[in-house]
Formats: sequence, structure tokens, C-alpha cells
Amino acid sequence: MKCTRCKVRAEVHLRQHNAGFCRACFIFYMQRQVERAIDKERMFSKEEPILVAVSGGKDSLALWDILIELGYRTTGLHLSLGIGDYSDASTRKTVDFTAARGLSLITVPLTDEGLAVPTVTGFTNRPACSACGTLKRHYFDRLAVDRGFPVVATGHNLDDEAARLMGNVLHWQMDHLARQQPVLEPTHERFVRKVKPLYRISEYESAVYAFFRGIDYIVDECPNSVGATQLLYKDMLNRLEAASPGSKLTFVQDFFRKGRAAFVREETAPPQTCERCGMPSFGALCSFCKLVREVETKRERRRSAAVVGGHS
Amino acid sequence: MKCTRCKVRAEVHLRQHNAGFCRACFIFYMQRQVERAIDKERMFSKEEPILVAVSGGKDSLALWDILIELGYRTTGLHLSLGIGDYSDASTRKTVDFTAARGLSLITVPLTDEGLAVPTVTGFTNRPACSACGTLKRHYFDRLAVDRGFPVVATGHNLDDEAARLMGNVLHWQMDHLARQQPVLEPTHERFVRKVKPLYRISEYESAVYAFFRGIDYIVDECPNSVGATQLLYKDMLNRLEAASPGSKLTFVQDFFRKGRAAFVREETAPPQTCERCGMPSFGALCSFCKLVREVETKRERRRSAAVVGGHS
Repeated sequence: MKCTRCKVRAEVHLRQHNAGFCRACFIFYMQRQVERAIDKERMFSKEEPILVAVSGGKDSLALWDILIELGYRTTGLHLSLGIGDYSDASTRKTVDFTAARGLSLITVPLTDEGLAVPTVTGFTNRPACSACGTLKRHYFDRLAVDRGFPVVATGHNLDDEAARLMGNVLHWQMDHLARQQPVLEPTHERFVRKVKPLYRISEYESAVYAFFRGIDYIVDECPNSVGATQLLYKDMLNRLEAASPGSKLTFVQDFFRKGRAAFVREETAPPQTCERCGMPSFGALCSFCKLVREVETKRERRRSAAVVGGHS
Repeated sequence: MKCTRCKVRAEVHLRQHNAGFCRACFIFYMQRQVERAIDKERMFSKEEPILVAVSGGKDSLALWDILIELGYRTTGLHLSLGIGDYSDASTRKTVDFTAARGLSLITVPLTDEGLAVPTVTGFTNRPACSACGTLKRHYFDRLAVDRGFPVVATGHNLDDEAARLMGNVLHWQMDHLARQQPVLEPTHERFVRKVKPLYRISEYESAVYAFFRGIDYIVDECPNSVGATQLLYKDMLNRLEAASPGSKLTFVQDFFRKGRAAFVREETAPPQTCERCGMPSFGALCSFCKLVREVETKRERRRSAAVVGGHS
């Protein structure tokens, strides 16, 4: 196959677009695809400082690389989740990427906050992915608003969006369907805009981009993701995509274009303000503070039990 | 495993219901499930004459058997599609079933109408499943209204409904999503109510029921269904169901309970009347008459071409 742009030998074949690219043209194509998504969806401008959530994986590092290449003003935000070797390696990859390119990075080690993911799940019995999601959302939101960033960009790719959409549809999660979109405008003074510039980029494309650009990312999946339903949905969608290339993109794109509107109610109650941390909440406490309170209560109980045990 | 109802050894294990049944209790369970669906969705009463669309496959014959056992007034309607040996065998199974039980059956041989499925697809280039669907819908609707049946029942099972829903969702077919439901009330004086009493019964359950009841049905799939996207969707859903039993039922049931409402527009234009056959239509001609006209035009052209060819 020949490169769709320059006609030399193609190194990548994108079945969903019925196109092939050589290395240089693929990099050009990817950056352009992302720029188009940013412009079309009005995600942010060249003047706005963007907080990029980076995990150390291919998607977030590729996103950051593309944003820099496109000339955007970026700062990285990395949460060190405390999931053993996996998190140590993720943090190392992120820090190395940042250092080699002289970028600005904010790192939050959850262990220092007493909220490493294994600690939280050990105290609360919550599924790891749910607890981790709550923690990430909270720190992304809070640091963005505290440090004056008008927008947070995450590396969610097409496969992530398709799997999430599949999960929402299989259970007809009406609220989640109404909120799933490439740009989430703030609904509270302590929320900022959240955007997903890679929502049209497949996992495969993002991996190839990272490889071509020499980005050293963490290849391992999070150990907590084993058996996660997200992977089951990705597997279903990969089967569909193999039989009918382009199906994932159609599924997600047509949802944003026409499906989602059906789920948006005329009135959605705006969030209130969390009594404890001042961030947006649905109820007296936000989901982060509920989680933290649960951890604190259990921790206190175990400590008392240990003391009583020690006295007996 | 023991029978959930009577505690003897179970012969069937239904993972999605976390239940097991012996032969007698499974038959009881199935008839009851169908009766509940009929009552809950107000499909029809014991007084109404029901036209049951029967193909000769497990679902439609199981449905007919259940309706008779439950004491409903039924007449079968069988379209002989003209798809070679497959249709001959289907018609034979249907006729044998009817004869052995002394039931009343209306048979329409599409070959006699000049509209055998291979004839239609040969003249029109339409995909076989699409042409076949148009033909079936037309004859079901027309015979029901002409013969005074207030309701047509079809054997669509849970797997059919889930696959259809998946296809509608993957392409965000808003109109189809609005119309997909277990009971379709007539929107035109020449439409009757259309119902799917097996919409909560899986393909597996329906096959086991047919086997236990000694129903001799056509096991072969229609030769035209090879590679059909419906089978791809069924395959995706089977993967999901294996990993998470009950997923198909949740998907379909929650769609009917809460998802569908989102797609129902305030005003949907009612159908007009077909200029040619008087049946409901969207446009001057109904989709059946458009199909027939296409067949007639092409047939006429080929005949003229043959005559001209003969003269030359």
C-alpha cells in the first residue's frame, strides 16, 4: 500500500479511513486530526493555558506531545496512584518525558495524601476503578481551578469513548448518556471545561503515533483493570470493528451528532457545593469527600480496635 | 443442580435467571413467562383472534404451541418464500405441525405471486434480507386486516430484539429506536396491532422448549443470513452474555422501560395511504409496492430485450 498523502510506501494502514500513511505523513495526519477536533468542538484556543492530565501511558503522552507540536500552552498534571510497581513506573515515564522536553509538570502523590488507591479500596470495599475514578476527577478538577487553568484535557481515545458509550447503552444510563461528550462545559464556579481531543483517535493510532515519535510510555495495563467490564466492551467492539471497519467511529460520532440530544433533558439540576471541600457536589458532600470520610472512619475504627486489642 | 420449582434434578440451567428446571417445570415456566408478557404489555385477550406468523423455525412454532396451550384463539400465517430447498422444508415443517394438531393455517406461496425472494433480489439488487422483510411485513399486515384479525403475533425472541437494538444503537437510528417495542399499536386504519410475546425468551430457551415439546422445526438457518450483520451483533451479544449472564435481558428490558422514551418524538407523522394497494405508506407508494414496481419494470425490460434479441 502507498501513502495516501505522498505516495511513498505506507507504514500504517488505517482500515476505518481506507487510508495508508508513511511515518512522516502519519504524524502530520494525527496532529491535524487532533487540531481539527479541537477547533471543530471549540475545546480551547492557543491563548488558554491547558492542564493536561498525564498518566504515563501512550494516550496522554501522545496527546501532550501533539499539543506541544501544535503550539498550545500546556502544563502536565500527574497523579501518582500508589498502585505498587505499576504506579512507580508510570510516574517515572511521565517525569522522564517531562524532563527530556523541559516541560512543566505538577505531580500529586496520592500516598502523601493517605489516599493511595490500594489504601482506599482496602478501607472501603469499593471497586478499585470506581474509587480511582473519583480520586482522579477530584484532583483534576481541584488543581485546575486552584491553579487558574480554564480547561483540563484528558487522553481518552476513540476506544475508551466507544467502550464507555457501550456500557452506558447496555444499561441505559440516561444521565451518563446525557453527559458523555467531547467537551463538558462547567456547570459550577469550581468546575472548569473538560475536553478529550483524542476522541476520534483509535488506541491503535495513538500507539503508532507514540512509537513513531519515540515516546517511552508505560505499556502495562493497570493491574486493577484485569476483568474490568471496560475491557469486555472493548473486546466486543474490536470484534465488530474487525468485521466492519469504521464501526467504532460511526458509533461514537453519530452518538455525538444525533444520539446524545435525545438524552439531554430540558432541565438538569446544577450541582451544589460540597460542605467539606467547596467543590461541586450532588448532595451535601461531593463523591470525593464521601470517599475520604469513609476511609477516615474505617481507619479510625481500625486504630481504636488495635489500641483496644493492645490493651487486652 | 436441582429444579428451582420442584427440587428434582434440573435438565435446563438458565444462567441469566440463576435458575434451573426439570422438563415439566421448564415447560410451565416458559408458558407462564409468555403469559405474563402478554398480560403485562396488554398484547391481546383470550377473546381476540390472533394471526400467528409462522416460518417453520423453533421460535414461531414454539410461540404457536404456547398460545394454544394457554387457550388463545389462533390462526397461523405462513409465507412460502421460494428460497429453494430451505423454503420447501420450512413449509413442510409448518404444514406438518398444523396437520398433526388440527390447526388452521393460511399459506401464501410467494412464487405464485411472482415474488419469490430470489426473483425479487435478482431483479432489484436489493439485499435479500431487506427485500424479504418488506415482503413479510406487507403480507402479514394485509392478510391480518383483510381477514379481520386485530393482532399479528411474531416469534421474535430476546436475541432477535437485542441484535436489532444493537444495530439501531450502533448507527443511532433514531426513528427505528422510537418504534422498537414489544407492542406496536396501529397508526393507520389498515394496520393492526403487532406483538412479540417471546421478546423476553432467549433463543436457547425457545430451542429447549421446542425440543421438550417434540416440535419438529427447521434447524437450518436461512441461506441468505450468512454474513448478515444481525449474526455479527448476536455474536457480540453472546460474548457479553457469556461473561455477564443476564446482560441481553437487561439491555432490551431497560430499553423498553426507560431508554426508548428518549427517542419518541412529540409528533410523529402518521402514515399516508398507498395509491396502489391501499395499505399504509410513507410517500405515494408503500415500500412493498415500490419493490413490486421495480420488479415489474425490470421484468418487462428483460422481456423486451429478449424479444428484440430474438428478432435480430
